[in-house]
Amino acid sequence: MPATFRVGLLGHGTVGAAFESLLAERADAVAATVGLRPELSGVLTRSRGDFDELLETSDLIVELMGGIEPARSHVLAAMRAGRHVVTANKQLLSQHGEELWATAREHSVQLRFEGAVAGVVPVIRVLQESLAAAHVERIHGIVNGTTNFILSEMARTGVSYDDALAEAQALGYAEADPTDDVSGRDAAAKMAILARLAFSTPVHIDQVPHEGIEQITADDMTYARDLGLGLKLIGTAERVEGGISVRVHPAFLYAGHPLASVSGPFNAVTLESDAFTEITMSGPGAGGPQTATAVLGDVISAMIPPVSTPEATERLAIVEDVESAFYLHLEVADRPGVLAQVAELLGLQGASVKSVVQRGLGENARLVMVVHPLLESRFFAAVALIGRLDFVRSAPRAIRVIEEEFV
Amino acid sequence: MPATFRVGLLGHGTVGAAFESLLAERADAVAATVGLRPELSGVLTRSRGDFDELLETSDLIVELMGGIEPARSHVLAAMRAGRHVVTANKQLLSQHGEELWATAREHSVQLRFEGAVAGVVPVIRVLQESLAAAHVERIHGIVNGTTNFILSEMARTGVSYDDALAEAQALGYAEADPTDDVSGRDAAAKMAILARLAFSTPVHIDQVPHEGIEQITADDMTYARDLGLGLKLIGTAERVEGGISVRVHPAFLYAGHPLASVSGPFNAVTLESDAFTEITMSGPGAGGPQTATAVLGDVISAMIPPVSTPEATERLAIVEDVESAFYLHLEVADRPGVLAQVAELLGLQGASVKSVVQRGLGENARLVMVVHPLLESRFFAAVALIGRLDFVRSAPRAIRVIEEEFV
Repeated sequence: MPATFRVGLLGHGTVGAAFESLLAERADAVAATVGLRPELSGVLTRSRGDFDELLETSDLIVELMGGIEPARSHVLAAMRAGRHVVTANKQLLSQHGEELWATAREHSVQLRFEGAVAGVVPVIRVLQESLAAAHVERIHGIVNGTTNFILSEMARTGVSYDDALAEAQALGYAEADPTDDVSGRDAAAKMAILARLAFSTPVHIDQVPHEGIEQITADDMTYARDLGLGLKLIGTAERVEGGISVRVHPAFLYAGHPLASVSGPFNAVTLESDAFTEITMSGPGAGGPQTATAVLGDVISAMIPPVSTPEATERLAIVEDVESAFYLHLEVADRPGVLAQVAELLGLQGASVKSVVQRGLGENARLVMVVHPLLESRFFAAVALIGRLDFVRSAPRAIRVIEEEFV
Repeated sequence: MPATFRVGLLGHGTVGAAFESLLAERADAVAATVGLRPELSGVLTRSRGDFDELLETSDLIVELMGGIEPARSHVLAAMRAGRHVVTANKQLLSQHGEELWATAREHSVQLRFEGAVAGVVPVIRVLQESLAAAHVERIHGIVNGTTNFILSEMARTGVSYDDALAEAQALGYAEADPTDDVSGRDAAAKMAILARLAFSTPVHIDQVPHEGIEQITADDMTYARDLGLGLKLIGTAERVEGGISVRVHPAFLYAGHPLASVSGPFNAVTLESDAFTEITMSGPGAGGPQTATAVLGDVISAMIPPVSTPEATERLAIVEDVESAFYLHLEVADRPGVLAQVAELLGLQGASVKSVVQRGLGENARLVMVVHPLLESRFFAAVALIGRLDFVRSAPRAIRVIEEEFV
């Protein structure tokens, strides 16, 4: 039996509950990887639990209460008692970050906060660790999923801001009082944190001017499209003549920008530097399971000293024959019944045709199609037979097709 | 004066030389952040230097020689002597990974290798740390920049494979002997490493079937476009019934797939999981400075115990007035000279118009434009005057535009 690592949880809202489930679900995997089994030592909410008691029985505190107090006092007390802390509290960090980070350094404990910015998109770790000594010039981020969803809907369907907001609320992407999101203030807190990490300089949320999306009209979206532009709520943190600028406002992007294609409730961050040009990371920006995944990653990092790649705990079989969708390109004689015969041979192997293009005449006739996923062995068996049909004028060409599973 | 941390460098090719420069350039910043100043203790190449002597005077070894021997022997010897090792050697890890990782564990040293896969794109750290306990279902990666450049050029210009390869060679994106890249073997090594990390199971490069891009024709690209598909060389590592599948082959993607828009010599990796849906990371996949940045990030992580956010070493000014490009939307009376007057007021503030759309008649006339970047204060001064022109029928609407700087 591996020893137990006791995690005390503050807060039991959406993220807190998701973290509790995820921790239970993944505890065995964590134990196999790091040699310690994480276990919840208790949960404190505003209405139940005693903080001092929880602290006493915890090796690490996870703070998911949100807001400033009592979160700030609890986090400080935990670190002063020598406990590592993992938090997803952007308000707290963007207002009291320096005090918290100084306390962590003073007591030689870790304070991790991946979940505070862009959910499971690992921008905090990348800035703090991968790029610890890189000279980051600029960050552009879509760091609020609510507003990105609203703007995506306005662009996609032409609805008004009010209608798109109502839809976001109906789908659970926006709260009943959406002010913090749509005003840009939520994004401003996150950009303050990113700027602090990228530029090693204190940045308070009150130093981050922000404009929201309430004034955007469907009309703007239409004209912008004619100019090749798409609208996003963009957070910017950049080095400028004389210092830095950190701000949040709606902005148009050209189609080629790495953030232009980020739609729906997703978040994405682009890091720019002369040394490495740019890195873009994107993923779901919020949601209980996503943020809980980020929190759990932080907990594991705090549990163990940095290690080399853990032992291979699995011995999984390498499977040879897998399912794929395929593009099939045939040069065929230009005569009736060709498609039917090809489709029949595919069908005998269980392959169904998703889309077809027929083009060219006589010598140049082509039959090009995409077939739905099937076992590769069965597809190639069909292609071998198709290649022997008398109207097929050269070897069939097959290329796999990846269908989108998510989003 | 901070104490010195001595870095011994094996190999002095493109990446080795770039790492030497970057280390010198960033040594002060690293010292400010972690309290130790990294310094090159020596360089070993095939023709100069003595390994044992270098090891004796180094706290950490950076291996950038490539190939199996003598890299393998040196890395093993360094770890057995208690030194952390940072390497970017994908061949070595995909063939001898288990031996190396076991040695690292046995001697309680770190073996880091972010630079081995996708250059500065931090996929190794994210898999090993952020997602240490996540249940990753599938990885799709564009992990070879040479082939992505060739395929992008074929798609963009309609040239043949041979011509695109020649261009890649002329630009330095492909080597004189491109076999390792275009055959998919380079990508297979990287996918073996990613699969090992994602699934905690041993994967050797010889277990990764790979197809290259040599057979792709311009014709395929044309037909594919009609079907809404773009072609990439895709590495896949996924859980399947009975185990896992790891493979590399050309594959078509639909336009909505997060990897579909990754073009040129860039790399990108998508990580999928039921818990967090998907995370996509992209950036330059190779190149000396990029890989050197990844290597330096690893060196810093090995230098220090995990710490909380370092002290804010800078006190940068927050600059209020910055340059932006703008979209400007005006509802105007439909009469001659309107554009000229608006452009003149903009011009007086130094704003130049990049593009214009004029539309509508009478009551519905609109003048919508994008202006090149200028100080925001100057732009808003011009807009204030424009808003007072008698033919402007309602308050001007201005939204910032982000122009693409890179790529």
